[in-house]
Amino acid sequence: MLLPVSTWQDIEAWLKKSRTILIPIGSMEQHGPNGFIGTDALCPEIIARHAEAQAPDDVLVGPTFSVGCAQHHLGFPGTITLRPTTMIAAMADWTESLMRHGFERIYWLNGHGGNVATIQAAFSEIHSRRSFDPRGEDNRPGLELKLRNWWDFSPVMQLCNQLYPVGHGSHATASEVSVTYFGYPDRARPEVEMSPKIAPNGKIGDAVQYRRDFPDGRIGSDPTQSNAEDGGKIVEAAAKAVLEEVKRFAA
Amino acid sequence: MLLPVSTWQDIEAWLKKSRTILIPIGSMEQHGPNGFIGTDALCPEIIARHAEAQAPDDVLVGPTFSVGCAQHHLGFPGTITLRPTTMIAAMADWTESLMRHGFERIYWLNGHGGNVATIQAAFSEIHSRRSFDPRGEDNRPGLELKLRNWWDFSPVMQLCNQLYPVGHGSHATASEVSVTYFGYPDRARPEVEMSPKIAPNGKIGDAVQYRRDFPDGRIGSDPTQSNAEDGGKIVEAAAKAVLEEVKRFAA
Amino acid sequence: MLLPVSTWQDIEAWLKKSRTILIPIGSMEQHGPNGFIGTDALCPEIIARHAEAQAPDDVLVGPTFSVGCAQHHLGFPGTITLRPTTMIAAMADWTESLMRHGFERIYWLNGHGGNVATIQAAFSEIHSRRSFDPRGEDNRPGLELKLRNWWDFSPVMQLCNQLYPVGHGSHATASEVSVTYFGYPDRARPEVEMSPKIAPNGKIGDAVQYRRDFPDGRIGSDPTQSNAEDGGKIVEAAAKAVLEEVKRFAA
Amino acid sequence: MLLPVSTWQDIEAWLKKSRTILIPIGSMEQHGPNGFIGTDALCPEIIARHAEAQAPDDVLVGPTFSVGCAQHHLGFPGTITLRPTTMIAAMADWTESLMRHGFERIYWLNGHGGNVATIQAAFSEIHSRRSFDPRGEDNRPGLELKLRNWWDFSPVMQLCNQLYPVGHGSHATASEVSVTYFGYPDRARPEVEMSPKIAPNGKIGDAVQYRRDFPDGRIGSDPTQSNAEDGGKIVEAAAKAVLEEVKRFAA
Amino acid sequence: MLLPVSTWQDIEAWLKKSRTILIPIGSMEQHGPNGFIGTDALCPEIIARHAEAQAPDDVLVGPTFSVGCAQHHLGFPGTITLRPTTMIAAMADWTESLMRHGFERIYWLNGHGGNVATIQAAFSEIHSRRSFDPRGEDNRPGLELKLRNWWDFSPVMQLCNQLYPVGHGSHATASEVSVTYFGYPDRARPEVEMSPKIAPNGKIGDAVQYRRDFPDGRIGSDPTQSNAEDGGKIVEAAAKAVLEEVKRFAA
Amino acid sequence: MLLPVSTWQDIEAWLKKSRTILIPIGSMEQHGPNGFIGTDALCPEIIARHAEAQAPDDVLVGPTFSVGCAQHHLGFPGTITLRPTTMIAAMADWTESLMRHGFERIYWLNGHGGNVATIQAAFSEIHSRRSFDPRGEDNRPGLELKLRNWWDFSPVMQLCNQLYPVGHGSHATASEVSVTYFGYPDRARPEVEMSPKIAPNGKIGDAVQYRRDFPDGRIGSDPTQSNAEDGGKIVEAAAKAVLEEVKRFAA
Repeated sequence: MLLPVSTWQDIEAWLKKSRTILIPIGSMEQHGPNGFIGTDALCPEIIARHAEAQAPDDVLVGPTFSVGCAQHHLGFPGTITLRPTTMIAAMADWTESLMRHGFERIYWLNGHGGNVATIQAAFSEIHSRRSFDPRGEDNRPGLELKLRNWWDFSPVMQLCNQLYPVGHGSHATASEVSVTYFGYPDRARPEVEMSPKIAPNGKIGDAVQYRRDFPDGRIGSDPTQSNAEDGGKIVEAAAKAVLEEVKRFAA
Repeated sequence: MLLPVSTWQDIEAWLKKSRTILIPIGSMEQHGPNGFIGTDALCPEIIARHAEAQAPDDVLVGPTFSVGCAQHHLGFPGTITLRPTTMIAAMADWTESLMRHGFERIYWLNGHGGNVATIQAAFSEIHSRRSFDPRGEDNRPGLELKLRNWWDFSPVMQLCNQLYPVGHGSHATASEVSVTYFGYPDRARPEVEMSPKIAPNGKIGDAVQYRRDFPDGRIGSDPTQSNAEDGGKIVEAAAKAVLEEVKRFAA
Repeated sequence: MLLPVSTWQDIEAWLKKSRTILIPIGSMEQHGPNGFIGTDALCPEIIARHAEAQAPDDVLVGPTFSVGCAQHHLGFPGTITLRPTTMIAAMADWTESLMRHGFERIYWLNGHGGNVATIQAAFSEIHSRRSFDPRGEDNRPGLELKLRNWWDFSPVMQLCNQLYPVGHGSHATASEVSVTYFGYPDRARPEVEMSPKIAPNGKIGDAVQYRRDFPDGRIGSDPTQSNAEDGGKIVEAAAKAVLEEVKRFAA
Repeated sequence: MLLPVSTWQDIEAWLKKSRTILIPIGSMEQHGPNGFIGTDALCPEIIARHAEAQAPDDVLVGPTFSVGCAQHHLGFPGTITLRPTTMIAAMADWTESLMRHGFERIYWLNGHGGNVATIQAAFSEIHSRRSFDPRGEDNRPGLELKLRNWWDFSPVMQLCNQLYPVGHGSHATASEVSVTYFGYPDRARPEVEMSPKIAPNGKIGDAVQYRRDFPDGRIGSDPTQSNAEDGGKIVEAAAKAVLEEVKRFAA
Repeated sequence: MLLPVSTWQDIEAWLKKSRTILIPIGSMEQHGPNGFIGTDALCPEIIARHAEAQAPDDVLVGPTFSVGCAQHHLGFPGTITLRPTTMIAAMADWTESLMRHGFERIYWLNGHGGNVATIQAAFSEIHSRRSFDPRGEDNRPGLELKLRNWWDFSPVMQLCNQLYPVGHGSHATASEVSVTYFGYPDRARPEVEMSPKIAPNGKIGDAVQYRRDFPDGRIGSDPTQSNAEDGGKIVEAAAKAVLEEVKRFAA
Repeated sequence: MLLPVSTWQDIEAWLKKSRTILIPIGSMEQHGPNGFIGTDALCPEIIARHAEAQAPDDVLVGPTFSVGCAQHHLGFPGTITLRPTTMIAAMADWTESLMRHGFERIYWLNGHGGNVATIQAAFSEIHSRRSFDPRGEDNRPGLELKLRNWWDFSPVMQLCNQLYPVGHGSHATASEVSVTYFGYPDRARPEVEMSPKIAPNGKIGDAVQYRRDFPDGRIGSDPTQSNAEDGGKIVEAAAKAVLEEVKRFAA
């Protein structure tokens, strides 16, 4: 079920059989010369919706948390970031809203490596509020929060390595660009050329340093290899893995 | 141009000719027995994208700010809200990110009456930070923030009144449900019946009172009248009005 | 009863018969060449105290919340503003203090249009905290928060239009200046002249734009018409309307 | 000059000769069986206005910051408190507003012992923001913040001790009740009796402990001695001391 | 018992007999030409550990809260400060953590005069949260928070005055430097000379003013008199007083 | 140089040759039946001071940030945690204080895996504030923030694996307990027995789950193997690696 296009009665019915929801979470940040600024939000959204399309009774997909922590990309126009403390506040509000309805397990399907730290900090913040409740935390519904990066499933990693043995990279990767081309084929940019073909590697600091060290925004990747067909395969593999993991998580 | 599916170079080029961006802003809250929980986010997004499709050089559409202030709907499963202070923080971060790139005019196309107060408070918060800058505010780029509810254009209001002379209502309105059916025709729910046909009217307090006074979530509306065809007409009218206003705003 | 000049035993006795309190809320901001900086705080205070003087058993008047949201007036010396998030925090603290004593209905009599958005956001923030309480919100005392602008009662509006058919305006209005002259007749400024006689109209942005577009601070008004006698009539009408509404609200 | 009943042009003129403003700051909290809840806000306000009446060209009196830190009095109905962090935020906003106009010296005339810690913390918070400004703090206007409790001037202390050699006390003191009776003679409560005549002494903890240890709210005082005539003498002495100190501070 | 070098089972056992813990709290700020930057954190830590060494069953010493409010010392390299609001948040988190385990009495042994205001504000903040709990505060464990400056015990004061009848001072005092030399004898700086021998007195404002008025950081002191032997005597006296007071506090 | 036992003149001299400082950062949380609650703060402190002792001219060691994010250990008495947002605020204040003196490179030597996410979020928060500065970030001193877990140096990892091929574990590890025994040999607990000898493995959730799944607090470890001699070897290896890395970082 897709929460944004469901009615409240649909969710009421869902809660009679499940306490679990999946939230795609991403970022709005530059992804090099042929990658979309929304790549990191679009990838988990595409994968989650693909999973839901195959098994609508097995997973409830919430709205996409589409702007995350992208300070280091602010040197590139179009990037939008939340401060980590704002992101923590917003994730806590989403969680506390869902808890009020009876949700007890929230599975965050993440599309941005730069979000990982703040998502984990948000989990700790939410749990701290519960621990500090002066009435104790034993006689209340539980709460489990889980973070999963879509690329971390081993079948997905293997597939990406097989598709792009050279130039997969670590930002504006060949695989993530393919996933978005699968989702938005009309927006694909096969014509874009890049130089050097494979972007340099290096460490990530703040916005000024990033723009200086990675002038077109990519790190270690050659996303001219990207295409919708590859994207479809990756989405297929990731959606399958998500469905399996969500079922275990909900159990 | 649609920012989430554009590259950073696209936005760099845009900024050479314009300092303006449109942000759809909505809410994730119950909309009665046949309306989607995402209605208030989907409506401005559908309208903005329709406008952009007609005149891609005239408007830049940013990501949708899809979860807003919906405390009063928390009595209905699926509703997600931000606290107003969280929403203010997030809108400020979006704005400060955009200002860093050179944007000076941000047009928020709103889909939720319950957001209006907090959006205006956010504008005041953002301007206050600038006023309190100890270095003065005279030698810096300007900043204009504008809020527009999509239903407030008079051609749109007239059309809605003409389409639904009875039972347009004020929450889960016939017109907003039609707009979402136009955007997501496969998800339309023509089969849903409601009783009473026209929902009661009344004032809005907090979540407990709202659920008690408006048991199926609607206020004053009969959205069984809604359909995709009407939605198309409304979107057409609203998109036209948005394009005209954004042009004036950007000038 | 006036809380600031009452004892705690008086309030204890009040709470045995009522759960309602009225809080005047205003702003500290320029009001043109002959209006006081405190106008928006003084007007609801004068009206509330007039109402209380007539029916001391029917209304409890709390301290005046005298500094509100006035960022757009910061271009004029003497204006003091709270950031909206500060105002929300302060209103929440007042409310939570009053709730601890058993108050359940708080009626905010407002004197400043620029406060409306933040007051409504504060209501939503306060209700959100209650909704997010992990123990549920059903077995607790209720809380009703009501906002009323003193000029919005129709007898008051009609009187103002009748007294000032031309040049009533929307900031530094003829009526509000009259109300303060009624309250502080020794401070009236009949000698002040203005040019143009009726100030320009226009839209309100931030502090820099406001000062540029409205050089003496007024919008659309000719407050040289203001006088204490008119003020007395307006106060009379407003106090009557407040008393009636507070009785209904308390019921 | 009294800011709330002045125009912005008055303040503009004031700033041509002075960079100093006085802010009365108090609390809204129980003051025993015959003391007003507003005592701590009313005392500095009465004294400041008395000073201003005598020397309107020598002191500018701002609006009264009337609700402060009174958590320990919350056991008594009518008490309203700010959390210290809210009070710090509000004092910072007042200060930053005043700084924008060119004020550089703010003199807080305090009426509540329980405010002292938070006022000092607010000063430190405000100065910290300036120190952390990444552009340095050397080429900006200075800022001096001064706290003065009205009862701490030695002529005032001597007078109070002389008027009330027994039972002056430390909360709901004979002197502060007299000051408010001078300000609001019609509200005086000469008929109230207390038992014991002199309230017990003890240490102050939180609200629950305070109410238990000091059942009628007084600490160490016998305010049945209070009267408007004494209040007038105290106000006279305090106003004189304030005027002298403000002149030195402004120099 | 020293919490940082104890096991959780040790603390579990402690809680069976006591609900009390001592927290040394200090600052990281310049202390003149021969005083350590950590002086204000080291002094209460040295005293507390000395007390614990003498009576390990009578006092539980927690970790040292070592960075406090030192904005006014930021003009001197090495000083680190928290904003007061950060310090309040951190002290609240420590307290709420300890309350979760069952601690009900927290004794803060303070080494920095500049912390006093913010510590008291933190106490009020913590108590306010409890008062605002919508479920009431009567049926919960109590909480007592106590602040003690180590130099305020009268035997300690007398000893310091006797040891340093001239040039004890009020910042970088002869006594506090001696205490740290007792704790870290290898780090003592007997060779440092100062001019003038006794530092000037004066009032404390912000960082810029402090550095200007007190060029080597001392106020009123001659710490060339300091030595480890004196420090040992002071520590002995202070530890004795602390043990006695903690026993009374815990009772 | 050790900042807490240095004078401000020492730091002034340091800043003439270096812009770098090392901050040990840890946690105050249970470490099983024979590990100290302060283990995670003590380990980086011991290592940093050992490094400094060997090369006092090569590294400046600041005060230890000793309480971190330990919500998941709150089920065990003695654990103290900061909420992540508090930790971010405190780390930002430390950083902004150090930046005011001219430090541009801050090396955080971390002792707690549970801190990693919040430390990285704090870095992003600090950089975001700089990016959002309306005056641009190009003409200011740079800022580099680096996180290093002491156990992540490969010589250290190899040594730990060699010393404890079985039962090294992931919480209350054999190596960290050894490091603290090296630092505090008198506090070692050779007599403590554990059952099972090697603690179970598993995933970490919140405090309630952790206490249930790991009843004595250890995860996967057998710290009965720990001893001061091993600790000395580990400290030696880690201190060497830290010195080398700090030199490169400072360059």
